[in-house]
Amino acid sequence: MLMEWHRAIELHKRTKGKVKTYPSLRLRTKDDLACAYFPGSYAAADLISKNNDASFEYTGRGNSIFVVSNGSSILGLKEQDPFAALPILEGKCLIYKVFGDINAFPLCLEAKSAEEIIETCKLITPTVGGINLSNISSLTSFEILRKLQSSLDIPVSSDDHYGIAVALFGALKNALRIVGKDLSDIKIAIWGAGKAGISTARLLLSAGANRIAMVNSHGILTKTNPYMSKEQAELAERLDLNVDYQDIKAAISQADVLIGLSTKDAFEPDYIKLMNQDPIVFALALPEPEINPALAKEKGAAIVASSLYWTTTINPIASFQVYPGIMRGALDVRAATITTNMLLRAADGFAQSIDEKRLSPDNIVPPLFSDEVTPRIAEAVAQAAIEEGIALNPLPKNKVYAQTWERLFGGRII
Amino acid sequence: MLMEWHRAIELHKRTKGKVKTYPSLRLRTKDDLACAYFPGSYAAADLISKNNDASFEYTGRGNSIFVVSNGSSILGLKEQDPFAALPILEGKCLIYKVFGDINAFPLCLEAKSAEEIIETCKLITPTVGGINLSNISSLTSFEILRKLQSSLDIPVSSDDHYGIAVALFGALKNALRIVGKDLSDIKIAIWGAGKAGISTARLLLSAGANRIAMVNSHGILTKTNPYMSKEQAELAERLDLNVDYQDIKAAISQADVLIGLSTKDAFEPDYIKLMNQDPIVFALALPEPEINPALAKEKGAAIVASSLYWTTTINPIASFQVYPGIMRGALDVRAATITTNMLLRAADGFAQSIDEKRLSPDNIVPPLFSDEVTPRIAEAVAQAAIEEGIALNPLPKNKVYAQTWERLFGGRII
Repeated sequence: MLMEWHRAIELHKRTKGKVKTYPSLRLRTKDDLACAYFPGSYAAADLISKNNDASFEYTGRGNSIFVVSNGSSILGLKEQDPFAALPILEGKCLIYKVFGDINAFPLCLEAKSAEEIIETCKLITPTVGGINLSNISSLTSFEILRKLQSSLDIPVSSDDHYGIAVALFGALKNALRIVGKDLSDIKIAIWGAGKAGISTARLLLSAGANRIAMVNSHGILTKTNPYMSKEQAELAERLDLNVDYQDIKAAISQADVLIGLSTKDAFEPDYIKLMNQDPIVFALALPEPEINPALAKEKGAAIVASSLYWTTTINPIASFQVYPGIMRGALDVRAATITTNMLLRAADGFAQSIDEKRLSPDNIVPPLFSDEVTPRIAEAVAQAAIEEGIALNPLPKNKVYAQTWERLFGGRII
Repeated sequence: MLMEWHRAIELHKRTKGKVKTYPSLRLRTKDDLACAYFPGSYAAADLISKNNDASFEYTGRGNSIFVVSNGSSILGLKEQDPFAALPILEGKCLIYKVFGDINAFPLCLEAKSAEEIIETCKLITPTVGGINLSNISSLTSFEILRKLQSSLDIPVSSDDHYGIAVALFGALKNALRIVGKDLSDIKIAIWGAGKAGISTARLLLSAGANRIAMVNSHGILTKTNPYMSKEQAELAERLDLNVDYQDIKAAISQADVLIGLSTKDAFEPDYIKLMNQDPIVFALALPEPEINPALAKEKGAAIVASSLYWTTTINPIASFQVYPGIMRGALDVRAATITTNMLLRAADGFAQSIDEKRLSPDNIVPPLFSDEVTPRIAEAVAQAAIEEGIALNPLPKNKVYAQTWERLFGGRII
C-alpha cells in the first residue's frame, strides 16, 4: 500500500482538524461590527422570523451541511465509538469542501439508538441545508435514512449508501457499453449485502436490471436464506433466485458482471471462469479487494475495477468522486429529498464525465481530479429534482453545471 | 444610529454565511487523498478508539465549539424561532474566529424544552472542545448552563451570561480605581434581572461586593417582591434589602454605581442626583441605553459607559471583547468547566488590557480592536483553571498569552 500509516498520523497531528472555519467578511471597524454582528444580525433575524425560508437568503444555511455519525460502523473497529468517527467525518467534510464547495461540519453523536439520531437530526435542521449520514451501522442506517428523508424537507444523503452505488453504476454503464451488453439482459452477481451492496442492488433494479443475484456472509439472498436482515429479506423478494442459498456458485454462474462489496479475497480466482463471456469484475472491498485486479484479468476478466485508488490501479472506483456532486445539485435547487431518479441521473453524469474518445477497458471512469465530475453530477441531480417537482428553487438548464464549475475551478487557490 | 439596516441586510444577502469552512490541508494527489481521507482517516480513528482523549491530538476537536441556541431569546422577537437565530449565531461564530481563532459552528435547535437542549448538547460532545449557549430564554438558560457544566467534561460557556458580566466588571474595576472607591464598600444598583443582570450580580458578589440592590421589571428583588423567577428569588436572599419592593428609589439612593441591563430610557435623569458622590453610571440596555450617556454626565455622573459601540461613544462595553478570550483560555488548557474564579480573572485580564497611563474617566476600557484583550483574558482564564486543578492540559505561565497573540496577530491577513 502506498499510504504510509505514520505519515497519515503525522498529518492529522500537525493539521489538528481537516476543515476549519474562516470569516467570510471583513471585521475591522465599528461599522463592520454593526453590520455583521450587532445589531446587524438582528436585521437578518427579523426577516427570517417573518419567513423562515429567508434563512436560505441571508445566512449560510443553503450551502451548509452536517456530516452525522454515531461511529457505529467504522472499518476495523468492533465497538461503537463516536469519538473515533471524528477524523473520518472531518475527511468527508474536507471532500465536500474541496470537491463540492460545500461548508460541511462534522457531528459525532454519542447516540445509542436510531431514534436518538433521528430526533437529533430533526432538531438541527434550522442550521443546515442538508444532512449526510456516515458510518452508521447497516442495522439502523437504512431506517434512519428513510425516516429522515420522509420527515425532513431538506435533502438527506449518505455517502455510504449512495456514494459507491452511484460511482459503481456509472462505471458499469461505461463498461457495458464497451462490451456491447445491455443492463436489462445481463446477469449481475453482487457479493456483500451491507449499505453499499443493498443500495447498489436497489439502484440497478430501478435502472432496469432484471437478473441480480446477491450474496451475504451466509449465502445467496433467497427466501430460504435464514440469515437475512430486514432490508436483505425485502431485496430477496425482488431477486427471486430459486436456488439453495448455500450454492453460491449458482449466483456467479453465467453472470456477466461480478461486483464485490464484501471482504478481501472473497473471490476465488476460478469464479471468473464460471462467468459469461467478456466478464466484468468490480472488486471494491475496502481496504483490500476481493481479488487482485491483475489476477482477475489473467483469469479472463474483460474489464476490472477496484477501490484501490491510492495505489497504481486501473479503473479506481471511489465514492468521493460522486457524493459531493449529489449534494451540490440537491442544495442548489433546494431539493426536498434525494430520490432514486436523482441517483440514477447522477450515475449518468458520472459516466459521461469521461471523454467518449478515451473510453477503453482500462478507462471506464473519469480521472480522480477531473473538473467535469462534480459539475455534471450536480447538474444531472438538479435537473432530476426539478423534473420530479421537488425542487424549491428550480434553475434553468446548465446553470448548476456552470456555477459549480465556477465555484470549484474559477480561480481557486487550494 | 450609524448602522444602516439596509446595509446590514445587503451584507447578509451577499455573504450568505458569515463563517465558512476551508480545507486545512492540500488535496491534490492520490497520496494526499490516502493520507487525509481514505484510508488515512482510519489511522487517526484507530488511535482515538484506543484512547478517546487522542481526539484532541488528531482532530480539530480541541479548537472547535458549537454555538447553540433554540432561538427563544432574540431581541425584538416574541416567538421562539430557531431559524431566526442563525444569523445571530453566525455573528457569534464570526466573533469567535476573528477575536479568538476558534472554529465555531452554529447549531440552531428546534427544541421545545430545556431537556431537549441539554440532551442534544450531551450527544454532540464528541465533536467539540467546548459549547457556547446563546439566545436562550432566561427562563431556562440558567438551568441548562448549570446542568451542562456539571455533567460535561468540556467547558460550557454563554456569551449572554458571561460576556457582558465580565466586560462590565472589568470596566467597573477601572472606574472604581479612578474615583478611588473599593468594591467592598460601595453600593451598587442593578436595573434588569435577566441573564446579564443576574450573572453580573453573582460575579460582583463573588468578587466581594457587599451592597447590591437589584431591580426587575416589577421592582426591587426582596423577599416581598412576588414577581421573581427562581434565580431572582435566590439572589434576593443574598441581597437582603429590607425595603418595600416597589420603592425603587430606595435601590438607587446613595448608590455609588448604577448599572442598567434593562430597557431604553429606564433611568429618569434625576436618579443620578440620588446617588453618592462621583456616581458611576453604566447604561447598557440594547439596542438603546437606559439614559443617554451625555445626559447622565450633565446630571452629575463622574463616569459613564454604554453599549453603543457602533456609534461614537465613550466607554463602550461590548461582550464580544471578552467571550472569545474566555473560551480561548478554557480550550487551551482543556478546562473541564467554566468557574466563577475563571470569570473573575477574565475581568482582571480585561481591566488590565488598557494601558495604565491611558486610564481616565472617558477611557476605562481597552480599544475595541486591542490586540491585548483576548491574549490577556485567555491567559488569566487558563491560569485560573490550572490553579483550581480543573485543567486537563496545564501550560506554563504566559504560554497561552503568547500563543493566543501569535494565533491572532502573528501574520494574519484578515
